[in-house]
Amino acid sequence: MSNEHLVIFDTTLRDGEQSPGASMTKEEKIRIAKQLEKMRVDVIEAGFAIASQGDFEAVHAVASEIKASTICSLARAVTADIERAAEAIKPAERSRIHTFIATSPIHMQYKLQMQPEQVLEQAVKAVTLARNFTDDVEFSLEDGSRSEHDFACRIIEAVINAGATTINIPDTVGYGEPGEYGAMFKRIITAVPNSDKAIFSTHCHNDLGLAVANSLAAVMNGVRQVECTINGLGERAGNASLEELVMAVKTRHDLYPVSTNIDTRHIVATSRIVSSTTGFPVQPNKAIVGANAFAHESGIHQDGVLKHRETYEIMRAEDVGWNTNKLVLGKHSGRAAVKARFEELGIHFDTPEALNEAFTRFKELADKKHEIFDEDLQTIVTTSTSSPFDSLYSFTAIDVHCLTGKKPHASVTLTVSGQAQTAEAEGGGPVDATFKAIEKIVESNTDLLLYSVNAITQGTDSQGEVTVRLERGGKVVNGVGADTDIVAASAKAYIQALNLIESGAQRAHPQFAGV
Amino acid sequence: MSNEHLVIFDTTLRDGEQSPGASMTKEEKIRIAKQLEKMRVDVIEAGFAIASQGDFEAVHAVASEIKASTICSLARAVTADIERAAEAIKPAERSRIHTFIATSPIHMQYKLQMQPEQVLEQAVKAVTLARNFTDDVEFSLEDGSRSEHDFACRIIEAVINAGATTINIPDTVGYGEPGEYGAMFKRIITAVPNSDKAIFSTHCHNDLGLAVANSLAAVMNGVRQVECTINGLGERAGNASLEELVMAVKTRHDLYPVSTNIDTRHIVATSRIVSSTTGFPVQPNKAIVGANAFAHESGIHQDGVLKHRETYEIMRAEDVGWNTNKLVLGKHSGRAAVKARFEELGIHFDTPEALNEAFTRFKELADKKHEIFDEDLQTIVTTSTSSPFDSLYSFTAIDVHCLTGKKPHASVTLTVSGQAQTAEAEGGGPVDATFKAIEKIVESNTDLLLYSVNAITQGTDSQGEVTVRLERGGKVVNGVGADTDIVAASAKAYIQALNLIESGAQRAHPQFAGV
Repeated sequence: MSNEHLVIFDTTLRDGEQSPGASMTKEEKIRIAKQLEKMRVDVIEAGFAIASQGDFEAVHAVASEIKASTICSLARAVTADIERAAEAIKPAERSRIHTFIATSPIHMQYKLQMQPEQVLEQAVKAVTLARNFTDDVEFSLEDGSRSEHDFACRIIEAVINAGATTINIPDTVGYGEPGEYGAMFKRIITAVPNSDKAIFSTHCHNDLGLAVANSLAAVMNGVRQVECTINGLGERAGNASLEELVMAVKTRHDLYPVSTNIDTRHIVATSRIVSSTTGFPVQPNKAIVGANAFAHESGIHQDGVLKHRETYEIMRAEDVGWNTNKLVLGKHSGRAAVKARFEELGIHFDTPEALNEAFTRFKELADKKHEIFDEDLQTIVTTSTSSPFDSLYSFTAIDVHCLTGKKPHASVTLTVSGQAQTAEAEGGGPVDATFKAIEKIVESNTDLLLYSVNAITQGTDSQGEVTVRLERGGKVVNGVGADTDIVAASAKAYIQALNLIESGAQRAHPQFAGV
Repeated sequence: MSNEHLVIFDTTLRDGEQSPGASMTKEEKIRIAKQLEKMRVDVIEAGFAIASQGDFEAVHAVASEIKASTICSLARAVTADIERAAEAIKPAERSRIHTFIATSPIHMQYKLQMQPEQVLEQAVKAVTLARNFTDDVEFSLEDGSRSEHDFACRIIEAVINAGATTINIPDTVGYGEPGEYGAMFKRIITAVPNSDKAIFSTHCHNDLGLAVANSLAAVMNGVRQVECTINGLGERAGNASLEELVMAVKTRHDLYPVSTNIDTRHIVATSRIVSSTTGFPVQPNKAIVGANAFAHESGIHQDGVLKHRETYEIMRAEDVGWNTNKLVLGKHSGRAAVKARFEELGIHFDTPEALNEAFTRFKELADKKHEIFDEDLQTIVTTSTSSPFDSLYSFTAIDVHCLTGKKPHASVTLTVSGQAQTAEAEGGGPVDATFKAIEKIVESNTDLLLYSVNAITQGTDSQGEVTVRLERGGKVVNGVGADTDIVAASAKAYIQALNLIESGAQRAHPQFAGV
């Protein structure tokens, strides 16, 4: 059987970030990009450079830091977008511009209000312009799966002639069915005379739970790039999940005529970093990366597993990064051991100060918590990354009292622009009282959209990681805080979210990507 | 296009319950079964009657309460299992026995240690016996997707001759690929001479993210029953998700030659009841029932939605039960209004005492919380259902104090067999201190496997719903507690879990189902 290379195009930092509430800072994007590079992702779509100053800076920073993966920016098929994308990816060793325009009748008529000929002309112009900046240009037919066959073939032939090296036909609205979507690729690849000059690509949404299956059906019909995200993050029900695609191709290598470059042993760690950065939990029954994905409950299965592993296991948990040797650290662990463990987790510190800060937080945590696991170390970094937004408010102290029959009472001290301020409040619970006390000081006028708590490690002294999502005037931010004290973690998360909401436009957040 | 009926076989109460930590009490199973009946599920697999006394009682109770759906119990292909299943489903208006045996070479050799001829003989004997108790008998070829074609055809022909009315070929290990799995059904249905005498069925696991796609590929090839669960619950990465299957068939009615009886408007409510009962969260990017499934973030999409709904929406959120008119209740709402709202949510009270208890809890909550939403009412019921297990320990009072720089301190008073006992402890956080104080009283010797918090409604005075999973000697239980005070909710959840773990064998929990 032939064994061609399947390009893994990760768009966690672009389409994944478009999930309501999943926006990321530049530092967060760099951290995730480094993990993707380590996993040997071929192409990282780092953002939509023209969407905002923050998005531009994030793409630029990722392009500067990453060496092994191609860095890509999205751009509508218009000059300003493409020039901005080109500027953002300039530092990259390997760079790609990904430009798109809608090609389905319904989108052309209602959204673009353009004739097909105008759309074709604009697409060719965009690709031609993009090729001035990089040899690697991807063109997407937005809502391509609902486009007319003849028009799709014409525009694809034209953009390949103009220099497009990858042709992506997304299932933008998640309407595709595997048989139909696969057959569409076969028909188009056969019909387009210069189709051998480009790699064909999928970008599937999961509205009907078929994103992975649709992508794989396309691979069976000649597609050699799949666009996907960690944990299936993305708008609405999300995109095809990278971990499921990669493991399906690997596990069913007898059927799929392709293989990927992915080092699958980093999958679980990457999933956790994305989950803790965005505050989006992974459900226990999520394939590959869910907590139960490799857990066998029933006695029959356990017995089968013991008798002969292949009876119930089609993948090994270790192959995707579960149960790797867990080095447990504690309060007597030295700086060198802690630093070494951070590095094994892919966390590097650019400055001695950054390492110092992480080590100080490690020591604080080890005083409160008996054993420090890898997840705790990741949280130290997720929640400690210094960012310019942290300057306005900082957490100083809290005094909370709950007594059955009385309203919980909180007294909170914040440092606001260097000055300590204290306020007291009662609430429905200690967290509510704490948030009300904070609001007496800051009067932020925000709405609390989401409050979620995850236990990071097991045991009664585990850290709680709290995500607080605030909204003001259409701007949505996530704050994350971790502490063995759930009330303190909540206060920290709330304050981080307040700092983000006050931080102006620096936060990377695409506002109008439609692929 | 033909439009045949697709049988929806829900196994949330059997395979779903096999998820580690998802075991349910009899009362919980009845509540979920009533919701499934309301949604017009054709067949409800209520449990595995021989697995335990608790499982038997749960199947029996569901069979007694449900009128519109067929009630099914699982049974291995042995006499004792089938007789026990028959006894459990006896009260049902429509009943089914679902018997299974492994038919793949690897399972026959390593797990059963039987020759194929012995397996065939035992299968026929089991089906023949089952037909003595009901006309509706399902036979499953465990690990059927990895069985040899000729042997599968022979055993299927034989069990249909023996009276099996449904033939299920599960993808037990989640190894299937849609093209291959669909083709297998076509081949088998064509080859088996009496295949028209039975309905063929799928049961797919989601280890590679393909459970829904595999089920649908089989439907394209003649299958007319799909086995599935709410939220895709089930062993490891779970089963095909009911909501995705039903909405795919409905949305792509142009392709699938079938339709279901499901009243899709109850999907979201059912998803929430299952999630809060099991303590398994639904991730925001889960198709159909995730919080973001119908949320459009990017400006382009929003604009498209405003201009012409179909540009980005393939389903209407209302059709699956999102955004239905929300009647908000408050502290001045009367008993009649509260009762009426409970009934609209499908929650009925068998006795005036049960209604009284719920109304008292409603009033307590309304004192602490401004607006009471549907989710709050559901939680009142989820966490208040009286059960015999509640008797050993009950929550009386708590006094918790957290001050930055000092260790959180908790004083907890429990009623143990009618007598008040108080203990104090310090901990890493207020929840940890509370649990430690409880343990000073009860000395349960359990391990805390999971601690999770979900905010039930939005806003700072929302209730926190806490799930605590405890394990002792291989027995795993979930306790759920809700309160506007997260520490109090945690204490309640912990105490409920302790009562469950002390409750002996009454808890329904199958230990050896292998389909």
